[in-house]
Amino acid sequence: MKKLTILMCLLLAMFANTTKAQQNLFGGQDIESAVVNDDNSVTFRFLAPDAKSVSVAGDFADVAEDNPVGGVVGTGLIPMTKGADGVWTLTTKPLDSELYMYLFEVDGVATTDPNNPYVYRDFAIVSNIFIVGNGQADLYKVNDVPHGSLTHCWYDSPGLGMDRRINIYTPAGYETSGKKYPVLYLLHGFGGDEDEWVNFGRATQILDNLIAQGKAEPMIVVMTNGHTAMEAAPGESSMGFYKPSREKDRADVPNAFVDNFKDVISFVESNYRIVPDKAHRAIAGLSMGGGHSANISRTYENTFDYVGIFSSAASGDEEFDASLKKQFDNGLELYWIGIGREDYLVLENNKKFREKLDSMGLDYTYMETDWGHVWKCWRLYLSEFTPLLFK
Amino acid sequence: MKKLTILMCLLLAMFANTTKAQQNLFGGQDIESAVVNDDNSVTFRFLAPDAKSVSVAGDFADVAEDNPVGGVVGTGLIPMTKGADGVWTLTTKPLDSELYMYLFEVDGVATTDPNNPYVYRDFAIVSNIFIVGNGQADLYKVNDVPHGSLTHCWYDSPGLGMDRRINIYTPAGYETSGKKYPVLYLLHGFGGDEDEWVNFGRATQILDNLIAQGKAEPMIVVMTNGHTAMEAAPGESSMGFYKPSREKDRADVPNAFVDNFKDVISFVESNYRIVPDKAHRAIAGLSMGGGHSANISRTYENTFDYVGIFSSAASGDEEFDASLKKQFDNGLELYWIGIGREDYLVLENNKKFREKLDSMGLDYTYMETDWGHVWKCWRLYLSEFTPLLFK
Repeated sequence: MKKLTILMCLLLAMFANTTKAQQNLFGGQDIESAVVNDDNSVTFRFLAPDAKSVSVAGDFADVAEDNPVGGVVGTGLIPMTKGADGVWTLTTKPLDSELYMYLFEVDGVATTDPNNPYVYRDFAIVSNIFIVGNGQADLYKVNDVPHGSLTHCWYDSPGLGMDRRINIYTPAGYETSGKKYPVLYLLHGFGGDEDEWVNFGRATQILDNLIAQGKAEPMIVVMTNGHTAMEAAPGESSMGFYKPSREKDRADVPNAFVDNFKDVISFVESNYRIVPDKAHRAIAGLSMGGGHSANISRTYENTFDYVGIFSSAASGDEEFDASLKKQFDNGLELYWIGIGREDYLVLENNKKFREKLDSMGLDYTYMETDWGHVWKCWRLYLSEFTPLLFK
Repeated sequence: MKKLTILMCLLLAMFANTTKAQQNLFGGQDIESAVVNDDNSVTFRFLAPDAKSVSVAGDFADVAEDNPVGGVVGTGLIPMTKGADGVWTLTTKPLDSELYMYLFEVDGVATTDPNNPYVYRDFAIVSNIFIVGNGQADLYKVNDVPHGSLTHCWYDSPGLGMDRRINIYTPAGYETSGKKYPVLYLLHGFGGDEDEWVNFGRATQILDNLIAQGKAEPMIVVMTNGHTAMEAAPGESSMGFYKPSREKDRADVPNAFVDNFKDVISFVESNYRIVPDKAHRAIAGLSMGGGHSANISRTYENTFDYVGIFSSAASGDEEFDASLKKQFDNGLELYWIGIGREDYLVLENNKKFREKLDSMGLDYTYMETDWGHVWKCWRLYLSEFTPLLFK
């Protein structure tokens, strides 16, 4: 091994301790990827002189090419082209404004993009991300506006018998305003944890931007962990850096999250300056978190004036119907339901849920969009839902 | 789609189109890696049936094998062995208790471990991490102890003309105790940013654990960005998800960070319950941040009773010497210097700095350890330094 390849520079930069290696920290691969071009097309680059095939796989792949690789297996993989310099490249068609995720497939092996240090974990999987702006996703960017704070802290749940990790967004000015604020409880889906809305959900950026634009009221956003088997997101608990698994992380006691949500409310209301009444509380969630929101809001009577059900549904026995009716009889400001037309996971149950609400004469606001059971929907729904709150 | 497995739920959440290819690419691997075994050896696994060679590269590699790959370039790469199932494996010798980082090299291409979702970004590079416990690194783990809070917020720097991101650790109980606390300002190195001590530094875990053990006083820890060209860590500012580069991120105005550190102090002291006197302020940093600590503490007179210089040095003209002498004449509780014997980047300057202190008759505490200019030192130094503060 005589020649110092770019790869080795990269590795040395990470692990060795010489001046040269430190300098390589700033060199490494002289490649930029993923680059969002002026026309909203995106260029991917990957150095692999000896690879036989390199493709990019991402949640834009079905719309990024006029002729995507066909068939069941090929969908979502776009072949890249190798240049004389050993760099594989691909430039997509212009993409919709959105936050996208991707990986490379190199000779059949999935890998992150070494030239893109921005990665998010979703359950057990890490992927690269990028944002295409000039549209909806400008809300997902950090912009030059007043920034709120995001606090990772722990609340005591006597009901669940453990301290649990929780993320709290406070709007810009909270620390010094002396004011009291309304609260949105924002819940994640089955594959997620308390970090999901922070990472893929871009909740901090969406709130910063909507508040700065005067579209949303300054509010506190509380993101907790809906899996009662977990004290915190993987890697953030005393379980250490284990591989997330259904067995370890999803062994939830039925209804335990809903039943013990009072511990969350109690923590928030005793540690933050909030207005502790129904008119200043909202609860919303995606998928499983939408079910949680429906069930918490109907069983905690006169607690929430605003409810958001994103790509979800709820159902139950006669007691369910009775409590739902009572929730609406007690009065509430907004019961908001959003779902994608291609959400084959939830669409049918969501339709049944809406039919139930219709048949019971219960008013709700409904938003139907393109797409399936994906973050694209949930970021949009959050940015549509929050401007309706606390007005 | 008849049966909806958990995996498919996950894939649905990640990508709109569920396909067999994506299952294989994004989640189908029933493999655990890296696994820390009972004897502190570590087993790596990587599925790549068609690969010609797979190695693991990590900061443990030089001590993990009796016969590591030799030479300057080769150090740090350990070949893995392919099994009949297409899974490449390697089990190391028992490793010292530490937080380690690694990547795989697959046919000459560096890749993250798809079965380890725990990754940290260091400047422009992402790598996997794992912790070997049963020793020093138990301090780096999240343990079942009372947890402090970590807040990502923004402070106004009139001097630098921008809002800047800052990370604040408050100890367990801060929210409800009503007490005032001492403050440690903890500064990063040249390649870092305000997130560095949170990620590789494990400052939150070290403080939680030392405080729980009664070894360190409950304190607030302030981690800010020492590069005045940046408003925040890459990806956290209005520059978006750009590729970090020396040109963009390190175009600092000389002395601007030191000169405007008063904005940081002012923010902290007006937003947190602190004791605003010298006896309750400490400042420490690694490498560049150690230089910052030396210079801030000598130029902000009677502000800090505790100073920590990790793998660093400071020097200057006669004004430097005079202010250093004055700092010690004014009195301070602790001037702590730590460095690794193999730190070829700083060792010589550090020696000169200590000789200067010696020749001027200025007392300091000195810790010399193994290793070079690496995180292994800095986590250890933080865990040695903090128990000495505010006693």
